[in-house]
Amino acid sequence: VAGGFSWPVRVYWEDTDGGGIVYHASYLRFLERSRTEWLRSLGCSQTALAADPGVVFAVTRLLIDYRRPARLDDALSVVCAAAAVGAASLSFEQRILREAPSGGEELLVTATVKVACVNARTLKPQRIPETLAAVLSSKNL
Amino acid sequence: VAGGFSWPVRVYWEDTDGGGIVYHASYLRFLERSRTEWLRSLGCSQTALAADPGVVFAVTRLLIDYRRPARLDDALSVVCAAAAVGAASLSFEQRILREAPSGGEELLVTATVKVACVNARTLKPQRIPETLAAVLSSKNL
Amino acid sequence: VAGGFSWPVRVYWEDTDGGGIVYHASYLRFLERSRTEWLRSLGCSQTALAADPGVVFAVTRLLIDYRRPARLDDALSVVCAAAAVGAASLSFEQRILREAPSGGEELLVTATVKVACVNARTLKPQRIPETLAAVLSSKNL
Amino acid sequence: VAGGFSWPVRVYWEDTDGGGIVYHASYLRFLERSRTEWLRSLGCSQTALAADPGVVFAVTRLLIDYRRPARLDDALSVVCAAAAVGAASLSFEQRILREAPSGGEELLVTATVKVACVNARTLKPQRIPETLAAVLSSKNL
Repeated sequence: VAGGFSWPVRVYWEDTDGGGIVYHASYLRFLERSRTEWLRSLGCSQTALAADPGVVFAVTRLLIDYRRPARLDDALSVVCAAAAVGAASLSFEQRILREAPSGGEELLVTATVKVACVNARTLKPQRIPETLAAVLSSKNL
Repeated sequence: VAGGFSWPVRVYWEDTDGGGIVYHASYLRFLERSRTEWLRSLGCSQTALAADPGVVFAVTRLLIDYRRPARLDDALSVVCAAAAVGAASLSFEQRILREAPSGGEELLVTATVKVACVNARTLKPQRIPETLAAVLSSKNL
Repeated sequence: VAGGFSWPVRVYWEDTDGGGIVYHASYLRFLERSRTEWLRSLGCSQTALAADPGVVFAVTRLLIDYRRPARLDDALSVVCAAAAVGAASLSFEQRILREAPSGGEELLVTATVKVACVNARTLKPQRIPETLAAVLSSKNL
Repeated sequence: VAGGFSWPVRVYWEDTDGGGIVYHASYLRFLERSRTEWLRSLGCSQTALAADPGVVFAVTRLLIDYRRPARLDDALSVVCAAAAVGAASLSFEQRILREAPSGGEELLVTATVKVACVNARTLKPQRIPETLAAVLSSKNL
């Protein structure tokens, strides 16, 4: 899983907590924004999928390691790489990085996220829609 | 609008921001919890109303004054008083109080909130369901 | 208050609620992002101000009108115009717009927000820092 | 880790997302409320610890399995059991349960959470304060 899609996220007051750093649950929102934008970059609209064929993606398992804290005003990069594609699920390896003043990048967070494709109404597992599966396959995913 | 329904809310890390106080949008969540519990205390389940007759309440206007900040671990009381009942709307006068160490109560927040009864699917205005209207009327609201 | 600074905001799952639309408190986060970026566009870093001279901005009053709901995947513009500048406070007129499929813009939300400049530690009112006051003055604000 | 401390959590609109179920990051807030209340039940105030000796607890690793979705109005039990106590860290096994209409309980979420005791200012690892360590030890933790 070298490289991968990256999405910029700015840290605002809403993301911080009274400890003066980003609240630990806020990173899950950042991770999902990157997954959403990765899907969008593949031409996949979740709103369209929810309407037809009526599927959404639901997180089923998440492992997250907090290595260094992010702070107000930080400019982050949230990396999203599809690590495995099943018939009805996707796994992602994700990282959150901060541009260091020195010019390099600091690794703040790593996460492994598994999402299931489910029926939007019943939440029962559903095959990944053909159109998306074809795009993933064309990228050797 | 003397008295009114009151609901206890404890302040957790999730509610605070990097300034060390409760984030200004968090109070809107506290205010809604109190309105929800007020409705529940009248025997009104929003889940049931959303299923049949298919209505939900949507905030249409909110005025909030922040007088003193709440902090981590504070035990708050969120007061909810119905101020006006229309055919398809409700107005509330709400207050958020903190028990002072001295024994009295400190006023932290005041708010006026107007909610509309709308169709859960189309979001078009809808009359307040008969059962709820009857309860409100029996309380001279 | 014609025109004003505008900041793009995309709607993600995190912003929506079970009614299928954006949760009413989420708009307060959007409004603050725009105010923050407006300050940044004036060369004003809130992190720097919090360190020296040790001031932050706290919302003291907010009036918000919800006209039309935003939905998942919507691309919004959050407008921020300084309406009044006091010695220790700022008032903003803000609007949230959505690009309509037809090409025009739909007005979703209007808000008036008053923020106070306060000491980061004591939260007592404090004069707006000279450097920021000078920038605001140079823009006839 | 049989039994363990349990804290009730009600699901409100703020916790749900456009999929009609609880947003996946909201469960992290529920888990933390239970850990906070477990600490409080041991006579441990995080506000007091942050002031003297100046330590806070920061999540360093979290593994969460989402088994069944929670929904609006659900009454949940959030279980918190200390699984391991280190010199400067604590590990928890947590579960989120829903009372089933049938009377039994449904398991919705399981999580393993590791938190570090850190200096409130520098965020460097710090020994768990004596008073708390003594309480944990007296409970064979």
